[in-house]
Amino acid sequence: MSTPRNPPRNPPRNVVVTDPPRAAAAEVDALAGYGVATVHEAMGRTGYLGPGIRPVHLGSRIAGTAVTVLSWPGDNLMIHVAVEQCRPGDVLVVSTTSPCTDGMFGDLFATALQHRGVRGLVTAAGVRDVADLHAMGFPVWSAAVSAQGTVKATPGSVNVPVTVGGQTVRPGDVIVADDDGVLVVPRLDAAAAVAAAQARTEKEDATRAAFREGQLGLDRYGLREKIKDMGIEYLTADEYARRGDS
Amino acid sequence: MSTPRNPPRNPPRNVVVTDPPRAAAAEVDALAGYGVATVHEAMGRTGYLGPGIRPVHLGSRIAGTAVTVLSWPGDNLMIHVAVEQCRPGDVLVVSTTSPCTDGMFGDLFATALQHRGVRGLVTAAGVRDVADLHAMGFPVWSAAVSAQGTVKATPGSVNVPVTVGGQTVRPGDVIVADDDGVLVVPRLDAAAAVAAAQARTEKEDATRAAFREGQLGLDRYGLREKIKDMGIEYLTADEYARRGDS
Amino acid sequence: MSTPRNPPRNPPRNVVVTDPPRAAAAEVDALAGYGVATVHEAMGRTGYLGPGIRPVHLGSRIAGTAVTVLSWPGDNLMIHVAVEQCRPGDVLVVSTTSPCTDGMFGDLFATALQHRGVRGLVTAAGVRDVADLHAMGFPVWSAAVSAQGTVKATPGSVNVPVTVGGQTVRPGDVIVADDDGVLVVPRLDAAAAVAAAQARTEKEDATRAAFREGQLGLDRYGLREKIKDMGIEYLTADEYARRGDS
Amino acid sequence: MSTPRNPPRNPPRNVVVTDPPRAAAAEVDALAGYGVATVHEAMGRTGYLGPGIRPVHLGSRIAGTAVTVLSWPGDNLMIHVAVEQCRPGDVLVVSTTSPCTDGMFGDLFATALQHRGVRGLVTAAGVRDVADLHAMGFPVWSAAVSAQGTVKATPGSVNVPVTVGGQTVRPGDVIVADDDGVLVVPRLDAAAAVAAAQARTEKEDATRAAFREGQLGLDRYGLREKIKDMGIEYLTADEYARRGDS
Amino acid sequence: MSTPRNPPRNPPRNVVVTDPPRAAAAEVDALAGYGVATVHEAMGRTGYLGPGIRPVHLGSRIAGTAVTVLSWPGDNLMIHVAVEQCRPGDVLVVSTTSPCTDGMFGDLFATALQHRGVRGLVTAAGVRDVADLHAMGFPVWSAAVSAQGTVKATPGSVNVPVTVGGQTVRPGDVIVADDDGVLVVPRLDAAAAVAAAQARTEKEDATRAAFREGQLGLDRYGLREKIKDMGIEYLTADEYARRGDS
Amino acid sequence: MSTPRNPPRNPPRNVVVTDPPRAAAAEVDALAGYGVATVHEAMGRTGYLGPGIRPVHLGSRIAGTAVTVLSWPGDNLMIHVAVEQCRPGDVLVVSTTSPCTDGMFGDLFATALQHRGVRGLVTAAGVRDVADLHAMGFPVWSAAVSAQGTVKATPGSVNVPVTVGGQTVRPGDVIVADDDGVLVVPRLDAAAAVAAAQARTEKEDATRAAFREGQLGLDRYGLREKIKDMGIEYLTADEYARRGDS
Repeated sequence: MSTPRNPPRNPPRNVVVTDPPRAAAAEVDALAGYGVATVHEAMGRTGYLGPGIRPVHLGSRIAGTAVTVLSWPGDNLMIHVAVEQCRPGDVLVVSTTSPCTDGMFGDLFATALQHRGVRGLVTAAGVRDVADLHAMGFPVWSAAVSAQGTVKATPGSVNVPVTVGGQTVRPGDVIVADDDGVLVVPRLDAAAAVAAAQARTEKEDATRAAFREGQLGLDRYGLREKIKDMGIEYLTADEYARRGDS
Repeated sequence: MSTPRNPPRNPPRNVVVTDPPRAAAAEVDALAGYGVATVHEAMGRTGYLGPGIRPVHLGSRIAGTAVTVLSWPGDNLMIHVAVEQCRPGDVLVVSTTSPCTDGMFGDLFATALQHRGVRGLVTAAGVRDVADLHAMGFPVWSAAVSAQGTVKATPGSVNVPVTVGGQTVRPGDVIVADDDGVLVVPRLDAAAAVAAAQARTEKEDATRAAFREGQLGLDRYGLREKIKDMGIEYLTADEYARRGDS
Repeated sequence: MSTPRNPPRNPPRNVVVTDPPRAAAAEVDALAGYGVATVHEAMGRTGYLGPGIRPVHLGSRIAGTAVTVLSWPGDNLMIHVAVEQCRPGDVLVVSTTSPCTDGMFGDLFATALQHRGVRGLVTAAGVRDVADLHAMGFPVWSAAVSAQGTVKATPGSVNVPVTVGGQTVRPGDVIVADDDGVLVVPRLDAAAAVAAAQARTEKEDATRAAFREGQLGLDRYGLREKIKDMGIEYLTADEYARRGDS
Repeated sequence: MSTPRNPPRNPPRNVVVTDPPRAAAAEVDALAGYGVATVHEAMGRTGYLGPGIRPVHLGSRIAGTAVTVLSWPGDNLMIHVAVEQCRPGDVLVVSTTSPCTDGMFGDLFATALQHRGVRGLVTAAGVRDVADLHAMGFPVWSAAVSAQGTVKATPGSVNVPVTVGGQTVRPGDVIVADDDGVLVVPRLDAAAAVAAAQARTEKEDATRAAFREGQLGLDRYGLREKIKDMGIEYLTADEYARRGDS
Repeated sequence: MSTPRNPPRNPPRNVVVTDPPRAAAAEVDALAGYGVATVHEAMGRTGYLGPGIRPVHLGSRIAGTAVTVLSWPGDNLMIHVAVEQCRPGDVLVVSTTSPCTDGMFGDLFATALQHRGVRGLVTAAGVRDVADLHAMGFPVWSAAVSAQGTVKATPGSVNVPVTVGGQTVRPGDVIVADDDGVLVVPRLDAAAAVAAAQARTEKEDATRAAFREGQLGLDRYGLREKIKDMGIEYLTADEYARRGDS
Repeated sequence: MSTPRNPPRNPPRNVVVTDPPRAAAAEVDALAGYGVATVHEAMGRTGYLGPGIRPVHLGSRIAGTAVTVLSWPGDNLMIHVAVEQCRPGDVLVVSTTSPCTDGMFGDLFATALQHRGVRGLVTAAGVRDVADLHAMGFPVWSAAVSAQGTVKATPGSVNVPVTVGGQTVRPGDVIVADDDGVLVVPRLDAAAAVAAAQARTEKEDATRAAFREGQLGLDRYGLREKIKDMGIEYLTADEYARRGDS
């Protein structure tokens, strides 16, 4: 009998899971090529971490496997614990047990993570040293920039499922991040996501070419009939103005 | 008898107005030259869409004539309908019937709009593909960046008055947008706005020159008498500190 | 008997203090070199104005002595009064008596302040003309960008203690500002802050070097024992999955 | 030739319109009986001022004719001007030129308005003395409660169109307000709104009775076919769990 | 071999799961007796849906088994589908695919649910008809009150895992809700939660009795030694004031 | 030589000040009688903690002397320390070093504080057990209600100046709180505040009586001349409508 692939419902508290399976590197790298919006559409419009998690600097696009951290607000102890669990190709994903904007992560952490081949940080809390992070080429997506420092006083967990932006991120899931924000692709869905993203890209390329030639979405997507059925009326400005007078 | 120039109070629902009159191109282009803050002042501090509508990338300044869209939240059907109504020199203005941060607009729409000569997008909702939009040179002002996709399921209207950021935008009005945000100039006021903006600019240029020479606003605007009448006192630090001891 | 160094508890309203003592220029300039996050840590994690006050453009780092302004919302009269009180090396700090996002400050004020050697603006309200401010090289940190104009109708104060982002700023205090936000260092603590920041920097440099070599924070900060005492468990993914089955 | 019924596009600033036509009292009173949600639906889901304008105390339901005020933030001068324009059956509607939470309205204003037969207050800003207002039986809907006081220094307008919660309110329009928030019904649509609300109420009553008997919306609204066409699948928990294993 | 108890990672879209197992009624009812804060503590401070989900009226305390709904913003079609899946003792939990404040739920739904023995509603979106809901004795916890109506145009799912307030709610989980907000207890943890909540209650009762007698938490929890180790100093006001003078 | 009455600029960290002087009981009690809005006006519109700090239940009015607490987010250790410092007539005022909504305070703390004669709680963070607090008659003003629990792991201070809602509260200051929110009156200003509040009340009583008789604020405050000077025009609806046609 195989190990159940899902985490327990009432997991032990304050644990560090040391060897979560990761999505395959080839699939991760392929997903980076498609970007957040395309993969999101390809996955049936699921997995987006929402407009509250933003890149501090525009212009990066990465994908990697999630190492997850659940921290107490105002406390970055568990990020120190997590560094040791990171491998090349990972993305660190930090959540807190309640809302927190503090600068839990800065250039010292980024130095340690770059040494281990980590590709970036995603956090529901805040980051600092952002000029240095940019100079180092270490991209971050966060809910805030804040110089406010943190302590190392309260336990938490590493590599358990965490929630960021209303989405559950599990260790080993694929994180895709670019200027549109951050997306999580469940580990076991990575191969399917690559295939769907490729199909979506081909469809979008064809549409883009058609739109460049002047075709309308109304025609390409067969919407003219639909809007007629909905009772949408076309009026001239004159007709519209007179309508209110009757 | 002429057509009434105002829309009906209880307009027909779900309509597309096909030929709203637009502000004159010469006036539109002139307003782009003055920018949002100057035209806003020139119009008696009216028409600003507020600090919640921001450019995704800094560095653009445009003006154009509004084609307006009223969409259901999470639904971009009416943007497809609106594309067909756009002409060179227009700016697409998208509102939703209730608050929405979804990425209702992306690079495919921008491709279609650039083909038609549209100058940019202003929306109370979200946009996506922002790296592509920037690369294409298609500027957007929005309340959010979000990869969250939308459906095409619910009717709405095109070229009816819409509210964005607490301002009513009517089709054909002038939209001015730059790094300070977005301004609407009513169509029939465009000529007056150009004249007022020119006067304002000349006044500001003179003030700027005077300030560069060291003149103070206190003197230039005759405020010294006013603040004396208001009872504002000048104290040394020593006098101020002692005041609390009496 | 010396002058009390603290302001009165119930200060006279609507005053302009003309000659508040400023922190020493050498210390101010030294603090600029360390930046916000480092000085914040060096001061025991105090003085940060919070994540709500952000640079409009990334890439600046300044320090200067505070000239403070307390204005009525929607009214910039007192900024005109404050300009005259500014000296080379100052930073203007503008607060309002209740929350306000209006564009109280623009390029004309910046022109006047640059003439006087002022290094930048920090405000809990909004700014405008941000493209011009950037072109002029005049950095601003604010809670909003807004073209909304203001009047000159209601009195306030200059160089009294003000609150911005939950921190009290007194005239003559040191303001440090960079991409991480804004920090206030009390005037009399500036020398101590320089020394502490230097010590902090040396410690961070050593840590950075160690992290580049692969040392872990867990070891460098002696956290392994601590997390064991906290009862944090290390589990394999297999052990973790089975834990929920018992 | 009749007077145009719409306001000018670029209205004169700082005016007090003394005798705007009001909706008929019988229609206003009828609308109060139906409440906000029902009239909103009856009007095709338009006119709602949004979830940001809330009653301070739950339990009131009123309707009245709008007397509108446009004030500067932090300034209640124009409310004093507006009191004189109020008649029995009116509701005072106060907006500000930029966002403001200050307590612009309190029990003294309520005393003056009750003397004139005014039925309540709706404001995009703040109110104070709320315990007294409740004791007086004067209902208020606002965006904030705040003791912060205001000045009387800056001009504005009375009985011009204002925007509150993204809706335009014109003088004489019908305001309906209850625990669900606030609705505006354009003056000329009041009679139609009464008829539509009555029809809606009858329909809702029938539905309520049917639901009490156990009928489902799926059947009453004919949705079973629709959801089948949408491809919604019904699965047992067992089927759902296995679906992920294939 | 038994059915895996966890949902698939990449579940089929747009499904209605008809018979999810529910937590046992006895345990559900027991949890209602303890309330949100106590059960939250008993579960190791997990499961709270956060301060953004609030009761519209204070004074209710319920527990029930979750029937979950995932809807499109501005669309309540799936709530109609969900009603049929509800049984006595359930609580309806409604989430949307992106943020939405619309009034998706009102008194007609409550009528249908009361007929089926449903105990209340929890939603990340908005509710309306709140005066009627209160009169009916049907409690609701929501992120907003809004009269804004919705359509029935876009598919979704019933009885799949949903996220509300950063917590995952699975069908059949226990929902506990009172004036402190809403808590989710995973179905399989309900028995353990009852036992832990009982233990917690006994401990709190003893503490409450001790505090009533004047014992201090400092002594009861053995904190005096701890704060001494932390270096917290006790100073008289005089000592404190002089400290700054050295 | 007397003790300096102001705290040091760079105070020692992590201290408990044991005997701060309190405002006189007679003055405190007198201020409770006037309420927040009246005292705020009497003090020149200063000291209000803003619209973000609200009573959980409406209907209380208290005044007391502040015992202040500065806590780490997610950590209520210092509230335990503070209980011992409380005396009859105090109000506990809790701030955190960075924004926090957690339920740091509940019915056990209230039990301990009631035993000591404390009159209520004011906090920039969250509270829980709010149904119990209401039943106990212990009023709270907070920024949030949250069941989210906290730890006891990080030091802080008691009876040092703290900032809540943009106002500095010093130990021994008077806190006045009612349905309009919370006000701080500096300790040394309490007597002056009583006198000013009495004068203000008499003036308001006279105004209220005059308004009940139908006098207008326009006349009572001499505003007719002022608004004429401002250029405010009175127009009939007809004149207003024609103005836009010229």
